Amino acid sequence: MAGKLNLSCDYMQGAHPAVLKRLTDNNLVKSGVYGEDDFSESARARIREACQAPEADVWFLVGGTQTNATVLDALLRPYEGVISAETGHICIHEAGAIEHGGHKVLALPGKDGKLSAAQIQACVDAFRNDANHDHVVMPGAVYLSQPTEIGTLYSLSELESVSRVCRGCGLRLYVDGARLAYALACPENDVRLPDLARLCDVFYIGGTKCGTLLGEAVVFPRHDSIPHFFSICKQHGAVLAKGFIAGQQFDALFTDNLYGRIGRTAIEAADRIRSALRQKGYRLAFDSPTNQIFFTLDRKKLEELSEKILMSFWENPDAEHTTMRLVTSWATTEDEVTQLIALL
Amino acid sequence: MAGKLNLSCDYMQGAHPAVLKRLTDNNLVKSGVYGEDDFSESARARIREACQAPEADVWFLVGGTQTNATVLDALLRPYEGVISAETGHICIHEAGAIEHGGHKVLALPGKDGKLSAAQIQACVDAFRNDANHDHVVMPGAVYLSQPTEIGTLYSLSELESVSRVCRGCGLRLYVDGARLAYALACPENDVRLPDLARLCDVFYIGGTKCGTLLGEAVVFPRHDSIPHFFSICKQHGAVLAKGFIAGQQFDALFTDNLYGRIGRTAIEAADRIRSALRQKGYRLAFDSPTNQIFFTLDRKKLEELSEKILMSFWENPDAEHTTMRLVTSWATTEDEVTQLIALL
Amino acid sequence: MAGKLNLSCDYMQGAHPAVLKRLTDNNLVKSGVYGEDDFSESARARIREACQAPEADVWFLVGGTQTNATVLDALLRPYEGVISAETGHICIHEAGAIEHGGHKVLALPGKDGKLSAAQIQACVDAFRNDANHDHVVMPGAVYLSQPTEIGTLYSLSELESVSRVCRGCGLRLYVDGARLAYALACPENDVRLPDLARLCDVFYIGGTKCGTLLGEAVVFPRHDSIPHFFSICKQHGAVLAKGFIAGQQFDALFTDNLYGRIGRTAIEAADRIRSALRQKGYRLAFDSPTNQIFFTLDRKKLEELSEKILMSFWENPDAEHTTMRLVTSWATTEDEVTQLIALL
Amino acid sequence: MAGKLNLSCDYMQGAHPAVLKRLTDNNLVKSGVYGEDDFSESARARIREACQAPEADVWFLVGGTQTNATVLDALLRPYEGVISAETGHICIHEAGAIEHGGHKVLALPGKDGKLSAAQIQACVDAFRNDANHDHVVMPGAVYLSQPTEIGTLYSLSELESVSRVCRGCGLRLYVDGARLAYALACPENDVRLPDLARLCDVFYIGGTKCGTLLGEAVVFPRHDSIPHFFSICKQHGAVLAKGFIAGQQFDALFTDNLYGRIGRTAIEAADRIRSALRQKGYRLAFDSPTNQIFFTLDRKKLEELSEKILMSFWENPDAEHTTMRLVTSWATTEDEVTQLIALL
Repeated sequence: MAGKLNLSCDYMQGAHPAVLKRLTDNNLVKSGVYGEDDFSESARARIREACQAPEADVWFLVGGTQTNATVLDALLRPYEGVISAETGHICIHEAGAIEHGGHKVLALPGKDGKLSAAQIQACVDAFRNDANHDHVVMPGAVYLSQPTEIGTLYSLSELESVSRVCRGCGLRLYVDGARLAYALACPENDVRLPDLARLCDVFYIGGTKCGTLLGEAVVFPRHDSIPHFFSICKQHGAVLAKGFIAGQQFDALFTDNLYGRIGRTAIEAADRIRSALRQKGYRLAFDSPTNQIFFTLDRKKLEELSEKILMSFWENPDAEHTTMRLVTSWATTEDEVTQLIALL
Repeated sequence: MAGKLNLSCDYMQGAHPAVLKRLTDNNLVKSGVYGEDDFSESARARIREACQAPEADVWFLVGGTQTNATVLDALLRPYEGVISAETGHICIHEAGAIEHGGHKVLALPGKDGKLSAAQIQACVDAFRNDANHDHVVMPGAVYLSQPTEIGTLYSLSELESVSRVCRGCGLRLYVDGARLAYALACPENDVRLPDLARLCDVFYIGGTKCGTLLGEAVVFPRHDSIPHFFSICKQHGAVLAKGFIAGQQFDALFTDNLYGRIGRTAIEAADRIRSALRQKGYRLAFDSPTNQIFFTLDRKKLEELSEKILMSFWENPDAEHTTMRLVTSWATTEDEVTQLIALL
Repeated sequence: MAGKLNLSCDYMQGAHPAVLKRLTDNNLVKSGVYGEDDFSESARARIREACQAPEADVWFLVGGTQTNATVLDALLRPYEGVISAETGHICIHEAGAIEHGGHKVLALPGKDGKLSAAQIQACVDAFRNDANHDHVVMPGAVYLSQPTEIGTLYSLSELESVSRVCRGCGLRLYVDGARLAYALACPENDVRLPDLARLCDVFYIGGTKCGTLLGEAVVFPRHDSIPHFFSICKQHGAVLAKGFIAGQQFDALFTDNLYGRIGRTAIEAADRIRSALRQKGYRLAFDSPTNQIFFTLDRKKLEELSEKILMSFWENPDAEHTTMRLVTSWATTEDEVTQLIALL
Repeated sequence: MAGKLNLSCDYMQGAHPAVLKRLTDNNLVKSGVYGEDDFSESARARIREACQAPEADVWFLVGGTQTNATVLDALLRPYEGVISAETGHICIHEAGAIEHGGHKVLALPGKDGKLSAAQIQACVDAFRNDANHDHVVMPGAVYLSQPTEIGTLYSLSELESVSRVCRGCGLRLYVDGARLAYALACPENDVRLPDLARLCDVFYIGGTKCGTLLGEAVVFPRHDSIPHFFSICKQHGAVLAKGFIAGQQFDALFTDNLYGRIGRTAIEAADRIRSALRQKGYRLAFDSPTNQIFFTLDRKKLEELSEKILMSFWENPDAEHTTMRLVTSWATTEDEVTQLIALL
């Protein structure tokens, strides 16, 4: 691994310097615990403002799987399941955390990693029209990711349609924003934080992949929509004793719109890489405009590149080809991109 | 709260300077993720050495409740429960996280916050002699804390007896070391890390309260005693994506025996406070030799002190008196102690 | 076992003849399934009438532990626990079924196997006054048994007090009526079915121990108080495919007030046995006026009696004595009682 | 519904007369409880003999969903899932009971309602070759039904292949025999009870749909393969207090090979119906040789038939057609079949 150019993921380094500075500056300040501290309060106020959601409840959890499992368990009644695209993180990469909480993930095929409003409506209709639906898992919520696991984006119009169907059907809408900063920094994106607050029942603003050491900010736009959410988190082992560690970091991320800016470097780097890949005749695999780049190459070329570049394996679309993933982040340097392009 | 002298708990500040320095020094180093990185490997090697347990598996989790719930769920078969003192953290302060995982906490009275070997044996005997024991929750593990929730310590001889009974009965022994550094730094203590490794099936070395921003190091002295523990953690939302953040911190804590030394300041401070309390005629509530100090005072005195000191409420032993807790930590200064004593 | 006079329990024989007849008479009638059949509908109507609860939802489940686990899981939010006397069936004899559903049983000492209203109020107050109650399991429901596990009865006034406290505190009240017919047949009892319907959120009318082959009738006095209860039952494996088998039996039990009469034989038999025990100088152990008789005897006497009588072991109150249980039922004959008394 | 010819399912009537007689004959016999009684012991012995599995553990549970959920929870470690065909009962018609127990159902497409050995092998290989498989639900068991939910049968050779793959991969093999009697009675079938005992880790012999009022016999061919299975059942609410009620029925079913014969009437009836359907030009939907008959008809015809025949809806293969299900059972009479054919 040593010596290779590493673009395998967006969570292999620490925190954005401004975030780290906030931690070091306040290291010995005495704070309230379990999230009841001035830093967390300040971060919450800034997030509410950025979301134009003055009534929102904001909670800081530690990581993505934990957040998904805790929020969905809070949203769903025991007999309800959650609709997800088959490529959804909860569906494939959380070791069954949602099922561990007792809920079925109702996987739908998805297109470009996304669910459509029509598909969700059809799923609910099929349930309702089933004469035996009392024996079937009831859809209770919809899970989607922005950007998706393959880097694609819901447009505002798509998200509005999904939200409309959810409200019409009594489904709660939850958006996983693990890489949200990279959506927000993307020129193609037209979904802003206030849109998420307006259209979702709950979403999370990713920290771990977007500038913090750890931490995700869960936003419930409507106050007290989940009574006793703290106890639910505690019961899921999802309460950080030193909540101020998350609070300080999100306070830094939402100071001077750092969260809105932090993904730009990554997007510019990814765009340069995509252009280079196209120019050099590689085939891009998904239509991702965000910080994940997927491209398909033959085994010989793969072997050659793998000697110098650390990428992550995605899938084998056929017997001769492999799709690999390159990922940029707020920490990616121009120099790394230049080196990478030279190697490709 | 502002302006008061705050000794209410041992997790209201950030990390020990040497721990924080490790994070800042390595902030932009690219690492493996999910705990597979050089820092974590180094920390594991140091912990194995400190525990004289060369075969041990070491995992870094985020917090105490999460660790307790995940480890106990891994240790227990679905029909088994865990024996704990009634004052045990899992019994009262984890919002039912153990039950959320499907297991009953079999609460025994405890003395000075501790379980005795005889008590555990009696509990198992009662189960085995019960003609209907197939209808009863089977004891499967023993949970204890070192130091306990009220600051007391198991002696080596007590722990050896407990371990002997557990092995004789087929119970797994798990020790919660949330504040372990304060036991190790305590002159009264004769239980060392290698003793824990020798006597327990699993224990955790607390980080959150002992010098890190977050993180607990779970030690299974026998290799692979819980197959697929990573997946169990993942399913419990207990895997830190940036595992190196925990790894770097524990690597620092186990460099030059910092973990062995870090609690000394706290113990010295606590001893000074206890002496002063005794001299001033206060009644100490439990026989804690560690960094938690419990004392009982009347309401009038409480009101008076509460104007200047931030303590934590413990309990009301009778209608006129209240037991309060003061807590020192690695970050407590001599000056704070001097001020406190002056105020008492 | 053969040849001994067996009074060890009240569920060792089949169904009351009138109940069995209903099954045999209708054996080849084609019915709706999963409880949607004419027999079940008729039984529900009769139960609503007997309870003077015209809006009640009535469901037929199979057995007691299943019913307790399913109903409590339906009543409680994930972070809530259920208050029970320490002698409660859910607390000790259900192999952790409530915890398997994720809920802590909050065990209180109890007096004569009963909880008092004051005790419940104190438990809720302690929770509410605890500054850290977000970290503590919230009381969400109260479980009690009528008659209790040791044969005692709540008076109407006691039950009214308990109900008042529950409603005042937002706790749901659930009564386990596994042996309810033996309470209803007892002269000391002043709690009737309409009282249960008025005072509880849900209760069950025991069938298994009171005349059926199997089956318990769960009564929610308020319509639709638990939406989707069928699916909850299904998810708990608690739906009987041939629901009409339970329906037919309860229809028989509630025809011509059989359920009100079925326990009389048992109570008369138990009273005769208790008189005889007192006359012969045995010590009765609990003040049970129902069909369970507890008496304490020395080991020598126990050995002697055990050669001829099959009783059930209850507990060893001290090193020399044992408390044994005799149980009568609707099937106990006068002849058996006469034989038993002769043997005592 | 009244007046219609009802062939909608195979569990709408009581017990086979010989089974019912066993219950009535022994109604007042005093037995051991919770399955420890002479009737159950006799039934177990007969089942072991019929399965040529002298070491087998045999347990009587109440219904199918309960059995599936309890057995799979006993077979699987918390992080394991169960492979099933998408049409599998656990996948679609158990209201999420498997997920309620914490396990993901890993649904594979299936062909004619069946899984192939190759498909199972491919699923395990995909898991093992996934570099991130620690984040993915591990396949732990295979669930299949004989006959399947659409009436098809695994051949002995198919089942042997599946079993070989399971053993090679360390997967436990579980066969749901809800309608097993109808497989055993089918001329096309070459899988006998001893084959199931030889090839599976556990299977159940269906009672509810095959002649009993209720009850399924779970067979673990290897003794004590699941320690403490009783407690697991108890915790799942799956223990019948009057276990002898199940024991008596299975004892009757396995007397004089009744279970081997009981399905013949149903198969003969189904074959007559299938012939008639073909003759009259209906399109049969699946290649079921057992007691379920699926046929597809246009809406006009459906409406016409539905006035006189109670069938069950299966699915709408296209906008104009509907697939309906007719089901025969041990109780179906020749007269009913003649009437049905006249109506078709």
